[in-house]
Parts: sequence; C-alpha cells; structure tokens
Amino acid sequence: PSPLMAPQSEDGRKRFMEFPYVSAPHRDLMVDLFSTMESRLGPYLLPCTLPPDVQYYHNQGSTALASLHIRSGLKPSPVLSLSLSLSLYIDFILGSWLHCKLPSGALNITSLSAYLSPSTDAPNFLMELIQSSPTSLVLILDLPPRKDLVLHSEYLQTFYEDTQIDEYRKILEKIPEVRPYSSSSLYIRSVVSPTAILVCIETEPGRTERMEEIVRDHVSAIAKEVLGIWLDRCACGGREMGEADRAHLAKRDRVFKSKTIEIDLGSSLPRLFGQEVATRVLGAMREVFSI
Amino acid sequence: PSPLMAPQSEDGRKRFMEFPYVSAPHRDLMVDLFSTMESRLGPYLLPCTLPPDVQYYHNQGSTALASLHIRSGLKPSPVLSLSLSLSLYIDFILGSWLHCKLPSGALNITSLSAYLSPSTDAPNFLMELIQSSPTSLVLILDLPPRKDLVLHSEYLQTFYEDTQIDEYRKILEKIPEVRPYSSSSLYIRSVVSPTAILVCIETEPGRTERMEEIVRDHVSAIAKEVLGIWLDRCACGGREMGEADRAHLAKRDRVFKSKTIEIDLGSSLPRLFGQEVATRVLGAMREVFSI
Repeated sequence: PSPLMAPQSEDGRKRFMEFPYVSAPHRDLMVDLFSTMESRLGPYLLPCTLPPDVQYYHNQGSTALASLHIRSGLKPSPVLSLSLSLSLYIDFILGSWLHCKLPSGALNITSLSAYLSPSTDAPNFLMELIQSSPTSLVLILDLPPRKDLVLHSEYLQTFYEDTQIDEYRKILEKIPEVRPYSSSSLYIRSVVSPTAILVCIETEPGRTERMEEIVRDHVSAIAKEVLGIWLDRCACGGREMGEADRAHLAKRDRVFKSKTIEIDLGSSLPRLFGQEVATRVLGAMREVFSI
Repeated sequence: PSPLMAPQSEDGRKRFMEFPYVSAPHRDLMVDLFSTMESRLGPYLLPCTLPPDVQYYHNQGSTALASLHIRSGLKPSPVLSLSLSLSLYIDFILGSWLHCKLPSGALNITSLSAYLSPSTDAPNFLMELIQSSPTSLVLILDLPPRKDLVLHSEYLQTFYEDTQIDEYRKILEKIPEVRPYSSSSLYIRSVVSPTAILVCIETEPGRTERMEEIVRDHVSAIAKEVLGIWLDRCACGGREMGEADRAHLAKRDRVFKSKTIEIDLGSSLPRLFGQEVATRVLGAMREVFSI
C-alpha cells in the first residue's frame, strides 16, 4: 500500500486481497498478480476512491458477496513528467471477486484487468477466472488489442507475434482437462486478440485436488508470464501517441469499456444483488470508467 | 455463362467447374455454391479475364495442378445505374482448386470467396476446404467483417447477431468428428468474424464414406445457408457508403487483400509450383486485386 493511500482504501484493499471463497492456489495466484501489478505500477496510481459500499457489497440475504478495487492512473502534469517516466499513462487497474451461493453450488469469479490511457495504443490486460463448481473453471487471459488488427498488421506483429504469446495458449491446450471456451457474447469474442486464452477446465467429478494442481502448476505460471509481457511491452513499452491517434483511441476505448460493462454486468448484477445495489455499483464504475 | 463471356474464359470456367480430384459430395457442393453465386450476381460481373496459363497451371512434373477463376465486378457508370440496382457493387468473386501429389498422399484445396467494393461496408464471403487426406478436412467458412467490430457494435449486431449465423457453427460443432481448428497465422485469425466456422473434421482411418456423408449432409447445408445470408444481407443488402467511409474501407480492404495473398500463397505457391509459375500467378492476382 502506498503512503498516499486513505485508511478507507486500505480496509477495502485488505478485504479485496482476501479472496475468501476460492481455493488456496487460486487465491495465491490472484494475490501474486495484483501485487506484481501494484508494485510495478504503484507510483503511477492513485489509491482506490470507490465508496466503501462499492468496494464491498452484498445482496439482502448475503448469499451474494463481492469486492471491487479500482485504482486510477495519475493524470499527467508537468511536475510529474519530470520525476516519472513520460510515457507511462494508466487509465485504471481493476481487481474484483464475487461469490454467490446458488442452488447448484457456488459461483466464484475473480478478475484482474488493466486499461491503458489513449496516450499509448498498447494492449490492455484482462484475466478472469469463473469457477462454477470445484471441478469446473473457465479461464480468460488476454491482452485485448486497442487497434483494428486487420488494418494495423505491424501492431499484430509487435504485440502478438514478436512476443510469442501464442505459445502459452498452446501449452495450456495440451492439458487433457482443457477445452476451448466460446463466450456466448459475440462482442466479447470480438474484443479479444487472436492469441486469447479462452478455455474451460473440467476435472472428473470429485477431483478438486486435480483442479487445484492445474491452477497451481499450469494456469499460475502462464498468467504470470502473460502479465510480465504486458508490464514490459505494453504498460511500460513507451509507445506514445500523437493527438490525432489519441482521439481515435479514446473513442474506441470508450465504446469498449461501455459495452464490456453492459455485457458483463448489466444484467447479472441486478439479478444477483438486486436493483439498488446494482445501480450503486454500476454508477460508481461508470464514473471511474469515464463513460 | 453470360453471353458476354469470351471463349477463353468459357474454357477456363469449364475446367474450373470440374473439381477433378475431390469426392463427389465435395465437388457437388463447390459447383452448387459457385453456380448460385454466379446466377445471383452474374449481371454485375465481367467474364474472367485472367490469361489461360493462370486460369489453369501446373508445375514441371504435373504433380501439382490448379485452376483459378476470377470475375471482377462491373464498374459503376451512369448508364448501368439506370438499368441495374444502384447499390450492388462487387469487387470480384474468386473460385479455385488445387491438387498436389505429396509423398504422404494428396493435398486438395478448393475455395470460393467474394470481395465487395468500398461502395458498401457489408462483409465479404470466404469458404475454403483443405483436404490433406480422404479422412481429414479443414473447413473455413465465414463472412469476414470489413469494419473494426469493437468500435462498430451496430455492425456486429446487423450482420452477426440479427442473422443468427452463429447457430450454424454450433450445429457443426455437435458432430463428434468435428474439432475447432486454429490457423497458424495470427493475421488470418484476426480477419475472421467471431462467428467464423474454423473446424477440422477427422473420421477414423479408412472411413472415407463417413467423411463424404458429413460433407453431403452437414457441411453442404451449412455452407449453402451461409452463402444465402451473404447474398441476401451483404451483397444485395443495399448498405451504401458515403465518400469519407469509402476511403477508409478502401484502405482496409487493400491491406486485407494484400496480407491474405501474402500469407495464403506467398510461400506455398513457389514451393508447390516453382518460382516462375508462382510469379506469373501472383502477378495476375495482384492485378485483379488492385494491390
């Protein structure tokens, strides 16, 4: 935690970092990734300013609980530019967990994403783990592109070919329990890169220890590598944009953020948490997202 | 064949339509699709003007043979606009087959694609069947988008959600012999839509009659439906673009065509047919492609 951090934000961060309902390897992975991101980008981030009842929220019967932690990037200023790297501009980083008791069992979703500002065109970072039972896990891991890859083939080359990021997808797909996963949303399928890892991992009924083994030995290693590529080549890659490019990027980013919230949370939050909580959380998110 | 067609083009068309090295259901499908496209779009197409030695070509030992048939669209003119639909502008349609004897057996590729002009932003059509053995077939079937789907979500809605085209992918993936196929080219993976059918069909060794059954009973029906959607909603959908949009579309189309030729044929044609034949064929294609 940075010395800038308000006490309210520290409480929220602590609760967020507990990931209280997932397996130990799953929790370890999330804590590791978020800590790595914070320790590398911390100097460029503000503390979380979400209201406490958005940093942690639940439904009336407390059968659905969630934590949300968002840290926006420092806005560039002449003073900052002297002391910090000129080209490291972060829109925000977002971590979350969600736990929901359902008749069929428990649903656990943990996610970590990072959005860069239109000062650079480098890809964002996205990871989501959706556990619908102890033996079934969906993994989404990608650096979603911020440009049209068909038109900008040099962008594809730089971030996806030269980084050899597709190798991680291939390694993972060799594990017998791993199958390709197809999102039901065509928009989500459109925003991911051609090297996106979108897989469903299913172990035999009752074999939860095998699931934990896959997360610990395979998913963790790959997620850390992909985050490393993102930190080195995207967040800190130094690709700065001119004014004209920024306007186009800002427009595309806005549509991306707006559609993603709408698809990901627009219908599920009201269903799981009730309309009042959903309105509060979505309103706070839209403010941070500037949409 | 249209009455405009030159004798040279008629010979080339006849040879192209023979699809001499593939199974009967495979040939029937290709002939059906190409005929359907020609009968619907014929009035807007010129005859094939490729030189005879590009319409049909082979390597020195005749172990690799291929046929190529391209018909460009009529260029809009005030006279034509009076008699034909104002908004039906085709860049070109392209059909091909390729047969190659290899130590491991025979490789057969048949393809049909259609490129619309920048007067409309509607998706193109793409189908390719790659048969590397009698029991192994890759099917690529898609309406590749001509706009960035992340930025233009209404385009995604119109051509991919409202048409329910994803249902065909789901039907096909239920067949036990069908698995998802991932192109080794990241660019090819970038150009396809989120509803693209990219599958590998593998039947048990020796079970060629099962492969023919899958092509006849499943692949054919789906390919005809997808072509029908493309003809009704894309080629004849009447989405006309203004000048500003056309310039951007023309630029994106040019990159798309140029990269596709480079990736698809740039290295394989010289390898299979020798440098002299490859140079001749690629040169003729680049001319028709205007790249």
